[in-house]
Amino acid sequence: MSTPLVVMKFGGSSVAGAERIKRVARRIARERTAGSNLVVIVSAMGDTTDELLALAAAITDDPDPRELDVLLATGEHQSATLVSMALHSLGVAAISLTGPQAGITTDGTYGKARIAGIDPRRVNAELAAGKVVIVAGFQGMSTKGVAELEATATASDVHAAEITTLGRGGSDTTAVALAAQLRADRCQIFTDVKGIYTADPRIAPDARQLSVIGYEEMMELAHQGAQVMQVRAVELGWVNGVTIEVLSSFEDAPGTLIKEDALVEQRNKVRGLAHDRNVAKITLVGVPDRPGVANHVFGPLADAGVIVDMIVQNVGHGGSTDISFTIPRVELAKAKRLLDPLVRELGFVDMTTDSSVAKVSIVGAGIQNAPGYAARMFGTLAEAGINIEMISTSEIRITTIIAEDRVEEAVRALHAAFSLEQPEAVEAAAAG
Amino acid sequence: MSTPLVVMKFGGSSVAGAERIKRVARRIARERTAGSNLVVIVSAMGDTTDELLALAAAITDDPDPRELDVLLATGEHQSATLVSMALHSLGVAAISLTGPQAGITTDGTYGKARIAGIDPRRVNAELAAGKVVIVAGFQGMSTKGVAELEATATASDVHAAEITTLGRGGSDTTAVALAAQLRADRCQIFTDVKGIYTADPRIAPDARQLSVIGYEEMMELAHQGAQVMQVRAVELGWVNGVTIEVLSSFEDAPGTLIKEDALVEQRNKVRGLAHDRNVAKITLVGVPDRPGVANHVFGPLADAGVIVDMIVQNVGHGGSTDISFTIPRVELAKAKRLLDPLVRELGFVDMTTDSSVAKVSIVGAGIQNAPGYAARMFGTLAEAGINIEMISTSEIRITTIIAEDRVEEAVRALHAAFSLEQPEAVEAAAAG
Repeated sequence: MSTPLVVMKFGGSSVAGAERIKRVARRIARERTAGSNLVVIVSAMGDTTDELLALAAAITDDPDPRELDVLLATGEHQSATLVSMALHSLGVAAISLTGPQAGITTDGTYGKARIAGIDPRRVNAELAAGKVVIVAGFQGMSTKGVAELEATATASDVHAAEITTLGRGGSDTTAVALAAQLRADRCQIFTDVKGIYTADPRIAPDARQLSVIGYEEMMELAHQGAQVMQVRAVELGWVNGVTIEVLSSFEDAPGTLIKEDALVEQRNKVRGLAHDRNVAKITLVGVPDRPGVANHVFGPLADAGVIVDMIVQNVGHGGSTDISFTIPRVELAKAKRLLDPLVRELGFVDMTTDSSVAKVSIVGAGIQNAPGYAARMFGTLAEAGINIEMISTSEIRITTIIAEDRVEEAVRALHAAFSLEQPEAVEAAAAG
Repeated sequence: MSTPLVVMKFGGSSVAGAERIKRVARRIARERTAGSNLVVIVSAMGDTTDELLALAAAITDDPDPRELDVLLATGEHQSATLVSMALHSLGVAAISLTGPQAGITTDGTYGKARIAGIDPRRVNAELAAGKVVIVAGFQGMSTKGVAELEATATASDVHAAEITTLGRGGSDTTAVALAAQLRADRCQIFTDVKGIYTADPRIAPDARQLSVIGYEEMMELAHQGAQVMQVRAVELGWVNGVTIEVLSSFEDAPGTLIKEDALVEQRNKVRGLAHDRNVAKITLVGVPDRPGVANHVFGPLADAGVIVDMIVQNVGHGGSTDISFTIPRVELAKAKRLLDPLVRELGFVDMTTDSSVAKVSIVGAGIQNAPGYAARMFGTLAEAGINIEMISTSEIRITTIIAEDRVEEAVRALHAAFSLEQPEAVEAAAAG
């Protein structure tokens, strides 16, 4: 039997400060002593990324994206070296690698690059040399610099390699991508919570930890506001069949497995709730009901990188209609700037905005095909006197927009209505 | 006439904080507007390097040198990106490059690597594209990682490239090496002082700024404690014939030129004083006067990286002798640990140490060949009642070891004795 390979990822709160780094090192050392080969991905320490952003903001309102990526990437370089040093001091052979050294190549989109490929030569060489390999998460390299060197540089030429970052939470993606490329036996994401819950336990006190959840369900939960895992990382795990374990870096307890779930079809149950306060609603009133108008509205937003989430268009009457849609709340000012001139140009009656709304979603594979879930959700909210402002649905999700100050009440009412505090027999079987 | 190329180096105090970075950017922008192509080398912001060292020290007493280099190098990455961002915000095209991206290769000695070569392709490509190139100082890459990748990596393969740092003050060396490689028209070292002085102006109030000084004199001054420039950087400038200008980043005033000085032979004058408090003296009493003893003493110190500066051995009598030598004060504990067992092994009578001494030197090309300088130095100290504990001399320098608490007095007395406050006619001619 060959030595198992385990990928472990530690987030920023797990490595915030020397004491926590030493604790993480002891956790890694224990796993190493147990006989596994290890690739460890780390995020930047605690608030480092925010501090670096603040430093850039003190210099300029509009930092160059390329320079910002080089700046932010230093946070993960630092934590990776410190974890490696801590392992050395425990007598564990270790080496830190930057994203480029680890062979992680990306497209050239600074600030939110996507991983294009992984050249695992260096990682494999270091593993073969008996070392725990610590990889700086959240970053890779594009070969954008190559063009400037014309024919004299190759794709992996250090002179041409440009640091790119994967966007917030990108270290999860680094971990899953490396696990896929290296065909790791396990991919563990260590966080400051114990796993995936049926709802945020800070809001729903009887929220229950799930022992297993399907990729698609996890993606919907993450997309709808559950902040434990990044959507892209889950998607990457799904595509590559990587089983991901989310678990606590602070206590020894089984986490939640994210994996393909053979029992999904039979389940048809609500698995969890997600909520998201980073939402603003825009309503365009009296929009002329003619072809091309939607494109005139959403085209400029897309060009400016504003992600539009839900879109609801009411049935038109009298040649005009109303369009409502949601965007991340932090983008509201930008969106208003872009849309204001359109009101006159396109002949809208009015534009209204509301930044005191929030999303609440129920997620579960197959619930769209099973009758009664939507009705029970809307009924529960109605009983609680909570008004639903917008609704959208997918195969495995029903999302409502409600007033932000009713979110906690809604989460607790729905958690009870769908009996999420009850262990599922089927889940116990699936996790076995 | 082709566009002049200017290399500018800004030290840590010049880029300590957003406001100073913006000031540096304005200085660079002004030079750019004046029509020069610019390569700018920056150190880490203010105390960043010390903070990173403290972080490593909180993790382990004995940080792995390779990991420490990756950690420390992030300080220069950060300042380089911030200076570049500040230039962008002034409308000046700029790009930051890490040491490896700038093509700076070194030997594989972590913590005090020496520059082995510079591949200027990327820097030249960016200059040709009209950009101000900001290079992270103090760092380069070795190809030590290549061996681990065996035949599959080339010297500039990003997977194999290992970050190495050049040691304290290494950014000066980066600047001079780049100026030499790029055949820059000027190499400017911006500091928090206005140039090179005849003595430390904080101690000798009538110390005078020199308009020009020879490489060899500057090397001796730097080696003997003047902290404005690094010895290695001056040496590199000498070997490559790079004229270096040391000047203030805070005010517009002519600095001091370090260059080959045709008038050296005619001068034979004391050019400046240097002092250094980072000195400890060790005396081995009653050392058996037989071959090989010196090697037994200094071999282990050299192996442990302790730099021995002055060595004085008195004439032996009765088969034994005394050996005194100086080392950096911070190394004293380590040196004692190494030497203690030797006292018994080699049959010394005793070992005494003194960490309250300091060096005071006079420097000037040709002074060794001209009579009277040594006598005047010793006489001046004697008149002031300052005891000389050790003496060493070179072609262009006379150094004395005295009690640390008499240093300031000694510097002031010697400054007056050699009339260093008086402008030199010959200097004015040389600077013209």
